[in-house]
Amino acid sequence: MTQTILLHEYGPSGNCYKIRLTAALLGIRLERRSYDILRGETRTPEFLATINPNGRIPVLQLGDRLLPESNAACFYLAEGTRLVPEDRWERADMLRWMFWEQYHHEPNIATLRFWLAYLGAERMSEAQRAQIDGKRAAGGAALRLMDEHLASRRYFVGDRLSLADNALNAYPQVAEEGGFDLAAFPAVSAWLHQVAAEPGHQPIDA
Amino acid sequence: MTQTILLHEYGPSGNCYKIRLTAALLGIRLERRSYDILRGETRTPEFLATINPNGRIPVLQLGDRLLPESNAACFYLAEGTRLVPEDRWERADMLRWMFWEQYHHEPNIATLRFWLAYLGAERMSEAQRAQIDGKRAAGGAALRLMDEHLASRRYFVGDRLSLADNALNAYPQVAEEGGFDLAAFPAVSAWLHQVAAEPGHQPIDA
Repeated sequence: MTQTILLHEYGPSGNCYKIRLTAALLGIRLERRSYDILRGETRTPEFLATINPNGRIPVLQLGDRLLPESNAACFYLAEGTRLVPEDRWERADMLRWMFWEQYHHEPNIATLRFWLAYLGAERMSEAQRAQIDGKRAAGGAALRLMDEHLASRRYFVGDRLSLADNALNAYPQVAEEGGFDLAAFPAVSAWLHQVAAEPGHQPIDA
Repeated sequence: MTQTILLHEYGPSGNCYKIRLTAALLGIRLERRSYDILRGETRTPEFLATINPNGRIPVLQLGDRLLPESNAACFYLAEGTRLVPEDRWERADMLRWMFWEQYHHEPNIATLRFWLAYLGAERMSEAQRAQIDGKRAAGGAALRLMDEHLASRRYFVGDRLSLADNALNAYPQVAEEGGFDLAAFPAVSAWLHQVAAEPGHQPIDA
């Protein structure tokens, strides 16, 4: 790809990191443009009108084409590469884990991290406070499900690294910021170390 | 496909309906096995051990292979057919809408419907009650974003029906059960009628 690929992002976001990691693993160069979500920079009329009507990052831009949603952007970058299984069932199973990540993993583990470590207790709403216990339980259940899956496997799908590992290794790297203790999930911890040793891998805070 | 394809499902679930609709549009025959989620039939030790450790339907089964997550199952059934765009960018854009559906649309519109119309006000927890206003606002914002996108387009991606339309036409069919009034979203209403007229289309309550 010789066309400039621009990532609209917020550095600490795991969803943005997933795209940087996919690009790093594949040797794809990304331009980066940063927005401070704590200052509402993705909710301005200009951002909503020209980058993403959903008011969120990440958004991948090629020319005048814009692609929100982290896992869709990873899929775009990686389709046809070693990060997407050639087998049809495994490809769907990879997407299964990526959809699971966005429904059961991210809204609990990432949201608690954002509320507790970035937004801060004093800026949380009553409705957010009321969800902490539920998200703590659901986030723990998500890590447990990952731990049980990884207890007998090196990778989430098949026998090699895929976008499923890419998507799921973002927030566990910083799960402590949301109050989750990875010591309780030894298979997740071992897999994190293994994924971090992949050629080209970069940590979330690189 | 001559192998039996079994859908583990709960009839009223829009996530299960998406898979039935994909199969109907493509002329694929599905066997169906029903579970009453209100009676906890997807949380039994047997279900967790043999069907889905995540305790949820839908799950697509081929032989001894199991595929949870509705949109992954739709992708498996439809890959290589007219429901998945041939163009690489459009294929990623289709997935963008499917991820958006699971993160911003379903957790608000479908969850309110389930709480209000199936679980019932008297069985809702305090934490659930505390989220009603937030989910009402977020669900309205999701429908508005769909409405603005569809104001100048017949389909979500490109110029033909794809899995994005398939995924997003499930819960709006029954949005009133969650207290959303589609009269405020004329482009969504027009698109729902248009999708319902596609050859082979079945409504959610078929």
